[in-house]
Amino acid sequence: MIVGVLGGGQLGRMLALAGIPLGLDVRCMERAADAPAAAVCAVTPGDPADAAAVRAFATGLDVLTYEVEGVATDGVPVPLRPPVAALRLTSDRWSEKQLLAEVGIPTARTLPVATRAGLVAAVEQLGACIVKTRTGGYDGRGQVRVTAPGDLSAAVALLDAPGPGLVVEQLVALDLEVSVVAARGLDGSVAAYPLLENDHRDGILRVSRLPARLPAGLEALALGWVTRLLEHLGYVGVLALELFVSGGQLLANEVAPRVHNSGHLTVEACETGQFEQHLRAVTGLPLGSPAPRGPAAMVNLIGTTPDPAAVLAVPGAHLHLYGKAPRRGRKLGHVTITAPDEAVLEDRLALLQRGLAALG
Amino acid sequence: MIVGVLGGGQLGRMLALAGIPLGLDVRCMERAADAPAAAVCAVTPGDPADAAAVRAFATGLDVLTYEVEGVATDGVPVPLRPPVAALRLTSDRWSEKQLLAEVGIPTARTLPVATRAGLVAAVEQLGACIVKTRTGGYDGRGQVRVTAPGDLSAAVALLDAPGPGLVVEQLVALDLEVSVVAARGLDGSVAAYPLLENDHRDGILRVSRLPARLPAGLEALALGWVTRLLEHLGYVGVLALELFVSGGQLLANEVAPRVHNSGHLTVEACETGQFEQHLRAVTGLPLGSPAPRGPAAMVNLIGTTPDPAAVLAVPGAHLHLYGKAPRRGRKLGHVTITAPDEAVLEDRLALLQRGLAALG
Repeated sequence: MIVGVLGGGQLGRMLALAGIPLGLDVRCMERAADAPAAAVCAVTPGDPADAAAVRAFATGLDVLTYEVEGVATDGVPVPLRPPVAALRLTSDRWSEKQLLAEVGIPTARTLPVATRAGLVAAVEQLGACIVKTRTGGYDGRGQVRVTAPGDLSAAVALLDAPGPGLVVEQLVALDLEVSVVAARGLDGSVAAYPLLENDHRDGILRVSRLPARLPAGLEALALGWVTRLLEHLGYVGVLALELFVSGGQLLANEVAPRVHNSGHLTVEACETGQFEQHLRAVTGLPLGSPAPRGPAAMVNLIGTTPDPAAVLAVPGAHLHLYGKAPRRGRKLGHVTITAPDEAVLEDRLALLQRGLAALG
Repeated sequence: MIVGVLGGGQLGRMLALAGIPLGLDVRCMERAADAPAAAVCAVTPGDPADAAAVRAFATGLDVLTYEVEGVATDGVPVPLRPPVAALRLTSDRWSEKQLLAEVGIPTARTLPVATRAGLVAAVEQLGACIVKTRTGGYDGRGQVRVTAPGDLSAAVALLDAPGPGLVVEQLVALDLEVSVVAARGLDGSVAAYPLLENDHRDGILRVSRLPARLPAGLEALALGWVTRLLEHLGYVGVLALELFVSGGQLLANEVAPRVHNSGHLTVEACETGQFEQHLRAVTGLPLGSPAPRGPAAMVNLIGTTPDPAAVLAVPGAHLHLYGKAPRRGRKLGHVTITAPDEAVLEDRLALLQRGLAALG
């Protein structure tokens, strides 16, 4: 069975690695010929945002999926999974918020704006807030935090970005950031991983933890939400719902209609990793168990690649490099730490983080 | 770092899969261009038994290793790990037995023979026995079981095989077959997996189980033996020591100086899988923990490839296909079953085996 992936970054690379043992022929399409996936599978050079190129790539595939969000899939001759509706609704922050509202999932108060006057009015109404471009931003790009009424210049500058305008999201007091990664199979079955606890810095995910240290009752709530969302979208594949815990309450932040950075630790920490799970879903295979096998933490390797020997000297460390050239702020790999219990996990995580800090 | 592997079968394929996340460039050399490893890494066409071809392949590598046993490594310009002595001593069943005796590891009584008269005398002396070619046999090939003094014709025919002759091994009453898979790092550290219990049929491994259901005390004995063996050989890499339990006593059967079929389940069942462990050893990285994460069983897929959907419908099933065309008696893949406890493991294993039997 041939699975085409739009995008050939680290997510495509890890999808291909997961597909080979299943006997799947995973192929990626990516602008850069030296993309991370190229070390594992065939990579067709091309722009996933070019509909004609995507159609040509898709010809002869059994199923088409994606690991990037700016893709053009009009008229592809094979099934697209997850469905294009999920991609369309989540690639615009305003339609994403409307989708969440429709499914009954609460979010921070949000207003769409397209003009300077609208922005000023929204900030007056909401108070401290984050202003984001509706489309195109990721890893903290295209976002400006506004905490005092006078400092609107950076937010106003976002109005010049291409796209349908901005959203203004009310700032909420953050107890914790978590995510729920879940899959829906072609047969409609849903398998959700336990909630993951996420630490961001400068808008980039730094550390994820399983289990998340969150108040009782919230996990079941989040699993109910993600199930409703998957069913509402007729979704097939893996999806991540990012959430805030604020004042003991859960609020949805955003939806990623693909395998997700916070789910990388599922490869070692759960019965079935998210990459295999996504491939099982989109090829119509039965979903695997998302049950945890023990506690784990994932640390992103950002900007510089550490010495593998130093990383692997940490007990329980599993190294995943993406084959990318170092660059400030770039995700070059991750390390998943497994441990028999949470206390040992925290010790190992601290050991790894001290080692990484010493390396620069 | 560039790691060359002589051989590009399923072992090479799984080494390459394990190497990619570590940032290693794993390349194989194999006669068949469509070898299993070719789906994952570059495969140089060539015969690992051709010393000139091996030298050419090795040029520019950082380290050379092997996953087949009939290799010619004279004059290779890079480090060979495991060392050639291990390969030489274990590729001849008589020198293998002498090696084990030298290290103080007991085996069934064994005699070398090179003539019909010698064979007759050895069978008279040992009684029921297995006659094996000293070199070249695997998966039950090149072996004849002799249980009555009159039936020597098939054993005599083995004398016509190329090589230095035969060994005659006394048959022992088998309680259980087990193996110990262990690694020695470049720094001399040793990491041994827990003993694995192996079921063979027609000379081919069918099922391996972790933990092995063996009498108390034998595991520590086996771990001591394999450590002595690794140190005696100045070994670097993963090695398997196959053992019999006979009348409650441990006897060594043979040594495989490479990653081993019985160790495939370590990928899911242990902190560090044997393929990653071998690569860590031969590249000088620190060894990982061989600690078990829970019970597991491995079932070889022989002769026919089952429907992946049927396999993956079994809870805890992890499918590993090798990309090989079906052929009677050929190892086409394996399934590892993980479970929270041994009772659940046996249930899942039975479910898988019923499904595989139904598929033919």
